[in-house]
Amino acid sequence: MIMNKQLLFVKRPVGEADASTWSLETNPIPEIDDGQILVKQHYVSLDPAMRGWMNQGKSYIEPMAIGSVMRAGSVGEVVASKNSKFKVGDHVVGTGGVQQYCATDGKGFYQVDPRIAPLPTYIGALGMPGMTAYFGITEVGKIKEGDVVLVSGAAGAVGSIVGQVAKIKGCRVVGIAGGADKCSYVVDELGFDACIDYKNENVATRLKEECPKGIDVYFDNVGGEILDIALTRLRMHARIVICGAISQYNNKQAVKGPSNYLSLLVHRATMQGMVVFDYAPRYAEGAKILGGWMAAGKIKAREDVYEGIENFPETFNRLF
Amino acid sequence: MIMNKQLLFVKRPVGEADASTWSLETNPIPEIDDGQILVKQHYVSLDPAMRGWMNQGKSYIEPMAIGSVMRAGSVGEVVASKNSKFKVGDHVVGTGGVQQYCATDGKGFYQVDPRIAPLPTYIGALGMPGMTAYFGITEVGKIKEGDVVLVSGAAGAVGSIVGQVAKIKGCRVVGIAGGADKCSYVVDELGFDACIDYKNENVATRLKEECPKGIDVYFDNVGGEILDIALTRLRMHARIVICGAISQYNNKQAVKGPSNYLSLLVHRATMQGMVVFDYAPRYAEGAKILGGWMAAGKIKAREDVYEGIENFPETFNRLF
Repeated sequence: MIMNKQLLFVKRPVGEADASTWSLETNPIPEIDDGQILVKQHYVSLDPAMRGWMNQGKSYIEPMAIGSVMRAGSVGEVVASKNSKFKVGDHVVGTGGVQQYCATDGKGFYQVDPRIAPLPTYIGALGMPGMTAYFGITEVGKIKEGDVVLVSGAAGAVGSIVGQVAKIKGCRVVGIAGGADKCSYVVDELGFDACIDYKNENVATRLKEECPKGIDVYFDNVGGEILDIALTRLRMHARIVICGAISQYNNKQAVKGPSNYLSLLVHRATMQGMVVFDYAPRYAEGAKILGGWMAAGKIKAREDVYEGIENFPETFNRLF
Repeated sequence: MIMNKQLLFVKRPVGEADASTWSLETNPIPEIDDGQILVKQHYVSLDPAMRGWMNQGKSYIEPMAIGSVMRAGSVGEVVASKNSKFKVGDHVVGTGGVQQYCATDGKGFYQVDPRIAPLPTYIGALGMPGMTAYFGITEVGKIKEGDVVLVSGAAGAVGSIVGQVAKIKGCRVVGIAGGADKCSYVVDELGFDACIDYKNENVATRLKEECPKGIDVYFDNVGGEILDIALTRLRMHARIVICGAISQYNNKQAVKGPSNYLSLLVHRATMQGMVVFDYAPRYAEGAKILGGWMAAGKIKAREDVYEGIENFPETFNRLF
C-alpha cells in the first residue's frame, strides 16, 4: 500500500525553527469526496515568509494551526479526480502543503504546462516569488526608465526577478546579497549592474560608491540594518517596497524599527507594504509577461532543488 | 534713532535649545537697495520644525548658518519700498526671521489683507501650518468620507486644522494631545469626535476604544511611541502622513524607529513623508478654501500670541 508522508507543524518556534517544530508522519493516502482531486506532489516551495506563518497573532494570513500539515505552495500531478475542472494527468499548482499527496477541492489550484517551463519554475519565477517580484517592482515600486533601483535578497527567488525586471525596464540595478559567490551570480548571470556583499563589505560605503546620486526605489526583502542604510541614500520622491524582513523573522526581541525613517519626510518618499495575494486576479497577466521574457532569454531563473520531505527542516533554515 | 532688535542663532544646540543658542542684538535698521523693501514685522511664527533647522546636515531645507538671524515666518507692514511689486502700507507675509525690521528683495513675500483675517492668522491657519494641514491630509492622507482619522499634536497649529478639515470631509476624527485642557479644547471647541490625553491615559487602550475597527489615516506630528502604537491599529490600505516627529527633535540619541513598521506589509499600508514647500504653487488655492471655511465658521483657529522678541527662547521650548 502506498502511504502519504506528511510534515506536520507541531510546535510554534521561538526564534529559529528546529527539529521540534515539525513531526514527520506517514498516513494512508486520503480517499477523495465528490468535488475533490488527489494531487501527487512533485515539488513544494520553501519561502522565508513561512517563518511568519508559524507565529501566533494577526498577520496578512491566518497563522498555521498546531497539528496541521506544514503550509507550502506546491506543484504536482492530478492522480484522481471527482472534480470536473481537473482531469487525471493535469499538472497543477496550489497550496498543497509539505506532503506527498494532497486531497483538495481544487480551490486556489490551477493547471500548468510542463512543456513550457519545468515544474519547479511554476512555484518560482512563474509562481508566487515571480508574481511578488513583478507586481512589487512595477506597481508598488513604480519603476521607470533611468531609475536607480536597489534590491536586497538579490540572489533570492524574489530579488533575482525584481532586478531583472528593473533592468528590462531600463533602470540601473544594484543588488545586495551575502557572499562573493552569490554576488557574482547576481552580476554575471542575472545582469545586475553591481552587487554588494553584505557579509564582507561595508554596505553604506559601497552603496555610496554604486549610487552616488542616491536611489529611486529600494525593494526590501530583509529589513534591519540594511533598510536603515538604504533610507540614508534616498532621492527625492523615492519609493521603498516593503516585501519582507528576513533579518527579523527569527527575532526573539522586538523588531528593529528603521531609525532613519524621517528620511521619508526629507525626501518626500514613500514606504509601502505589499502582499502578493492582492494581485491574484492578475497572476495570469504577470505569468504571461514573465514567461515571455524567460522564453526570450531576458530573464533567468535558477531553482535550488532538494530531495526528500525529511530534509525540509534543515533546508528551510538554510534560507536565513 | 529707531533700532532693530535681532535674535541671532549663535550655537547649535545638543538636545534642547537654551539661552546659549541665541544672542539678542540691537543694530541699526538697514538701508534698502534698489529692488528691496523694508518690513516692520508684527508677528513671527514659532514652529517645532525650527529645532531641525538648527542641526547641521542634510535635510529638506538648508541648516541655519551660525551668526544668522533666527529663521522664522513673519507677517508685517512695508515701511519703505524700492520694489515696484510692494508699496508702503502693504501687509506682507514671508520668512522675515526673528527681528523687528527685515530688509528683503521680496522673494517669497506676498501681500495679505488684515480686513479679511487678523495678521497672526496669516502665519497660522492661513499660513504654513494651515497649508501643511490642508495639503497633508487631503493630498498625502487622501481622506475620503467615512475614513477614521487619527491626528497627533491635535491641539497644535497643524493638527488642529488637519482634524477640522477631516471632519468637514465626513471622517471620524480622533486627536491625541497632552493634558485635559488641550483635549477639551480639541473636542469641545474644534469638534473632533474624541481626543486621547497621552499624558494621563493609556494611548493603546484608548485608541482601541475609540477606533475599534482601526484607522484609515494617521497624521503624525510626533513620531516615537505614538507612531508605534498607531501602526498597531492600521486598517487595510491605511495611509500614514509623516509630517513631523516632535518627540524626537530634542533627542541626543538616535531617533527611535517605528518597530511596528511591518504592519505596513500586513495592511498593505503606506507611510509617506511630506514637506509643505512642495505645495507652494497651490498655496493660494489652499488659503482660499481654508479662508472660506473660516469665514463660514466651519474652521476655528486660535493663536497663542506672546509679546517681546526677548521671550522667544523660553516660548520656543514651550512647544515641546
